[in-house]
Amino acid sequence: MGWQIDTAQVEDLARGAALFGTGGGGDPYIGSLLARQALADGPVAVLDLSELPDDAHVLFVAMMGAPTVMVEKLPSLDEVIEPVRALGAHLGRPVTHIACAEVGGVNSTIPVAAAAALGLPLIDADGMGRAFPELQMVLPTLIGVTASPLALSDEKGNVAVLQTIDNSWTERIARVATVEMGCSTMIAGFSMTGAQARAGLVGGSLSRCITVGRAIADAREGKTDPVTAAVALLDGRELFDGKVVDVQRATTTGFARGRARIEGEGGTVLTLQFQNEHLVAEADGRILATTPDLIMVVEGETGEPVTTEGLRYGQRVRVLAAPADERWHCPEALAMVGPGYFGYDLPAHRFDGTVSTGAVSTGTVSGIAAAEEAK
Amino acid sequence: MGWQIDTAQVEDLARGAALFGTGGGGDPYIGSLLARQALADGPVAVLDLSELPDDAHVLFVAMMGAPTVMVEKLPSLDEVIEPVRALGAHLGRPVTHIACAEVGGVNSTIPVAAAAALGLPLIDADGMGRAFPELQMVLPTLIGVTASPLALSDEKGNVAVLQTIDNSWTERIARVATVEMGCSTMIAGFSMTGAQARAGLVGGSLSRCITVGRAIADAREGKTDPVTAAVALLDGRELFDGKVVDVQRATTTGFARGRARIEGEGGTVLTLQFQNEHLVAEADGRILATTPDLIMVVEGETGEPVTTEGLRYGQRVRVLAAPADERWHCPEALAMVGPGYFGYDLPAHRFDGTVSTGAVSTGTVSGIAAAEEAK
Repeated sequence: MGWQIDTAQVEDLARGAALFGTGGGGDPYIGSLLARQALADGPVAVLDLSELPDDAHVLFVAMMGAPTVMVEKLPSLDEVIEPVRALGAHLGRPVTHIACAEVGGVNSTIPVAAAAALGLPLIDADGMGRAFPELQMVLPTLIGVTASPLALSDEKGNVAVLQTIDNSWTERIARVATVEMGCSTMIAGFSMTGAQARAGLVGGSLSRCITVGRAIADAREGKTDPVTAAVALLDGRELFDGKVVDVQRATTTGFARGRARIEGEGGTVLTLQFQNEHLVAEADGRILATTPDLIMVVEGETGEPVTTEGLRYGQRVRVLAAPADERWHCPEALAMVGPGYFGYDLPAHRFDGTVSTGAVSTGTVSGIAAAEEAK
Repeated sequence: MGWQIDTAQVEDLARGAALFGTGGGGDPYIGSLLARQALADGPVAVLDLSELPDDAHVLFVAMMGAPTVMVEKLPSLDEVIEPVRALGAHLGRPVTHIACAEVGGVNSTIPVAAAAALGLPLIDADGMGRAFPELQMVLPTLIGVTASPLALSDEKGNVAVLQTIDNSWTERIARVATVEMGCSTMIAGFSMTGAQARAGLVGGSLSRCITVGRAIADAREGKTDPVTAAVALLDGRELFDGKVVDVQRATTTGFARGRARIEGEGGTVLTLQFQNEHLVAEADGRILATTPDLIMVVEGETGEPVTTEGLRYGQRVRVLAAPADERWHCPEALAMVGPGYFGYDLPAHRFDGTVSTGAVSTGTVSGIAAAEEAK
């Protein structure tokens, strides 16, 4: 059933989305500021996927670029709706619904802001059920939805509309344009019918974010363990508990790339590899989880999600893992978002430690070492 | 009066344009192949600027990128018209005339090919009276004509339409997109009315190219000196005669950048600095000519223009200079295309050795040395 999202839910949404965002998707505080501002004049209607008419015209609205930069460049509401306006003009037919491309701090609240500013309903769904760093990495790509025409705009007023031969080319051209435009842009694209959205999206994402975000806050207030509460709702498991002892991070080619080492009791070290999002978790020469499953870092005490750009030396953190939407484990999906795509010579490891179907080689830590040497 | 361009004139046009292209604008042979193919079905009507109706809708059509790459990636006619088609659809009103953004081997013949393929008349004019490396560097920029909306397309079928806040931003975003799309794209933009075209363009460019191109060929056949014939028609002078002893060249950020040294009788060395086009000519610590005036290199015997990517060790060449359209010497124009813009701490030197108005500092060779060290 349809419901409404208002300012009271924004904080839980941003917290839950930051968790599902697996380290990416931008700072949840920035995201909630933006949504709160947009919802000041009233709530936004949210529809379930099942309520979407077949002839709906759905667009993804998102921030593209390094979230590291976004923290210092909060977009205005005008900026958020500019690519939707440009794309609507280009397509010559009105947009009827807004959807999230991914769940993640900023990219779950920017669509809320866009829907509020445009007076359009939002869909309780997203394109991934998590966050990923590149534009083509959404489930609709797997059912043939084209990213283009895609509009991108910057805070200065520059706009580009791309029409490309496939979704990877949309990513390539939009990425270099985004870097040139100041490392962060607003985008709108993946024009879908209601039927395509129902087939391609992950349903219930926003309500799930709010539920998990609320459960973490409730546990905190009730003096129970927020991480345990989150893990139960995620059907996941806790991988590690420790202190951040090393973070290497660089903003290159429009991404926040890097590696973090977390030391646990007894000196065991967990290594996380990330590119906007956490991609590989490994400890003692053993792969604990990889993309596409979800690897999440939270503050040890409060359960508050920590983004990859928020990782700091000395932080007490706990690392969680949870299953990705099962569609991410088909061979075509693994070719797009599996460890191999990101340069790790590893098969995809599910969060329970088993190797995913579509695996291309045997996973060893030397795969990581080789990928690191290659960088 | 209007006239027609046919295959018989293509060779002269390409030769003359390569001369006015001051080393840039791409290989004239490639350019003439393309135009010859396009004119196979009949000639293209060419109008004088004075014949252009006020309500005409004029577009520049050009190749963007490193001409070094273009040599290996000859565009098809479909590619040449794709950005015009995309821009026409975006603007929602028909294009009535095609114009050259610059004169230069490929960029004087691509518009001929586009006009032929689209069945539109061409204007006997261009945006510079020479060639320059960046998109905003056309005289219409000085009278407020916007480059955007600008469409660019590659041979794979990717298209982008840019709407930017100024013409320098069109250049910046189109340049990074062009590099990503394979270092060479076709573009269409600078939508102008007939009145704007008359105020902003350099008239008579194409006929001037054909006249000079023909004169060089005629002198060659008549066993007189082709270089003397060209210099007379250009109102220019011969700066130097010698042998290429050193060429440094790199294709970086979408440009062919470099330096050539030419040794004359008695060991005097002339140094040419270029970025697609020749920008500074200097010998014995004296600046002989700089952008915006025209610096041209031709084969010593035949008078055939040599592009910057065609410069080779051991070539016998002669270096000519000629005046730019006088509008290039106003302060706003010098800020856009003077030596300072390209990193040389020099005022603009006219081809006769005098310093241009709008000069910002005293020219010394140390200016070149400083710019080279900074690279």
